[in-house]
Amino acid sequence: MVPLNLMGERGHADYALTGNFATKAYEEAQKYGACHVAASSAEENHTYIPPQEALQLDPTASYFHYCANNTIYGTEWQYVPETGSVPLVCDMSSNILSKPIDVSHYGLIYAGAQKNMAPAGVTVVILRRDLVGSARADTPIMLNYATHVKGDSMHNTPPCWCIYILGLVAQWLLDLGGLAEMEKINVQKAALLYDYLDESRLFHGAARPEARSRMNVTFRTGDEALDAQFAKEAAGSGFSNLKGHRLVGGMRASIYNAMPVEGVAALRDFMAAFEKAHI
Amino acid sequence: MVPLNLMGERGHADYALTGNFATKAYEEAQKYGACHVAASSAEENHTYIPPQEALQLDPTASYFHYCANNTIYGTEWQYVPETGSVPLVCDMSSNILSKPIDVSHYGLIYAGAQKNMAPAGVTVVILRRDLVGSARADTPIMLNYATHVKGDSMHNTPPCWCIYILGLVAQWLLDLGGLAEMEKINVQKAALLYDYLDESRLFHGAARPEARSRMNVTFRTGDEALDAQFAKEAAGSGFSNLKGHRLVGGMRASIYNAMPVEGVAALRDFMAAFEKAHI
Repeated sequence: MVPLNLMGERGHADYALTGNFATKAYEEAQKYGACHVAASSAEENHTYIPPQEALQLDPTASYFHYCANNTIYGTEWQYVPETGSVPLVCDMSSNILSKPIDVSHYGLIYAGAQKNMAPAGVTVVILRRDLVGSARADTPIMLNYATHVKGDSMHNTPPCWCIYILGLVAQWLLDLGGLAEMEKINVQKAALLYDYLDESRLFHGAARPEARSRMNVTFRTGDEALDAQFAKEAAGSGFSNLKGHRLVGGMRASIYNAMPVEGVAALRDFMAAFEKAHI
Repeated sequence: MVPLNLMGERGHADYALTGNFATKAYEEAQKYGACHVAASSAEENHTYIPPQEALQLDPTASYFHYCANNTIYGTEWQYVPETGSVPLVCDMSSNILSKPIDVSHYGLIYAGAQKNMAPAGVTVVILRRDLVGSARADTPIMLNYATHVKGDSMHNTPPCWCIYILGLVAQWLLDLGGLAEMEKINVQKAALLYDYLDESRLFHGAARPEARSRMNVTFRTGDEALDAQFAKEAAGSGFSNLKGHRLVGGMRASIYNAMPVEGVAALRDFMAAFEKAHI
């Protein structure tokens, strides 16, 4: 939807390629205008996030697009890119509501609900009003942000159940003390695993320390057979979905908002026991 | 999605305009190709369904599109249009699973889940494989049927909860005896109201008898103030959403699969009591 709406008939846009969905967004956008790779971490298998000074920004771009958290690679942007007057567009699907954000920095934020918000089936979009209304003429009506602004997000029959659950999750976060409190918990959870990984003689983290994600912790032993054995034994002990994405292998612990500190601590203990048995 | 996928780069299509969504589909399709009105009931406020012999069909059309049940007007196609080699495309959002259908007559069937299948948020599409793969080059990837065929309907994270409920509803229908049994119940429910309307001295049905919908029964007194009073008193007695759509006024009883016979009988009794008090 972003290219159809924000590039208009003749626009062009900058993309940072830091992972799977960032790259997919870039590929799709090329159908609708000239897209420029402002930065890419592909040459190091997306193990890092390009720093501000590495972004090759076009001051005439319609927007700059990045993906705030890369689930497969376990990296997360630790800063908000500075793009001058070029609207900042961010896919926050996998880290929205994990910490406070200042929406005033952004032209448009979009996020599928299924990580930290609600069951899959609803997408949250936060956008600056002045970016609405310049869509390409052939934009399907349901993909035009103007349709949803005009219809108060009810042009179609909205996915009521998902929205209802999102409301409950938002209330849960407020009761918890808000996003600042949620961030503290997420910092604590991520530290439990990264501190252990930094000391481990068996496991090591896949992402560079300065780019580590608080949502997805990727790690490996360096031995594929041992990785597979770990994932299997972990599954047998109740730790699900630790096998890394087929694109990268290794292991990945997804510790979204819904995962309690106790769950992360239990995984760390399990890893330590596995290490002891295999070193 | 239908025009983007089925008209291709240069196609044209036939549309039957029998209500609100049929007309919206026609308007949207005009962005992507030449669309021809094969039939319209607009001149009589959509109170009837054009018969087969009234359809002005173009044998070179990419497809013929119609909406099987028109919720606002309370009409329903009582026959499957015969279109020769032109693929039949049908919006069955508001009557799918209300009766058996022979899918072999159709090129493509689509239906939003929210009436007879599951909570809003998932759409079911049944299409002939030979119609997949001819989308316009600029079709957004998520709107290309080929994407979903290739990805086994899981290219994106699917709306799992809605699909799960759809599975439970399908099992409920099977336990009930299947769609043939569901149809018997729906015939019985609709007859309870239409038989009463045909005898009533206060209320009369809005749709022509030969086009009456089994899902949405539209009726009125002919007196707007009395209509409003009825809807209000009915709501007070637990009969919700009887006020007709703002486009047509009057009343509308939606009696989808989930409404039991007892609920329809109770409404008929309430209508009869209201009639007695106002005649």
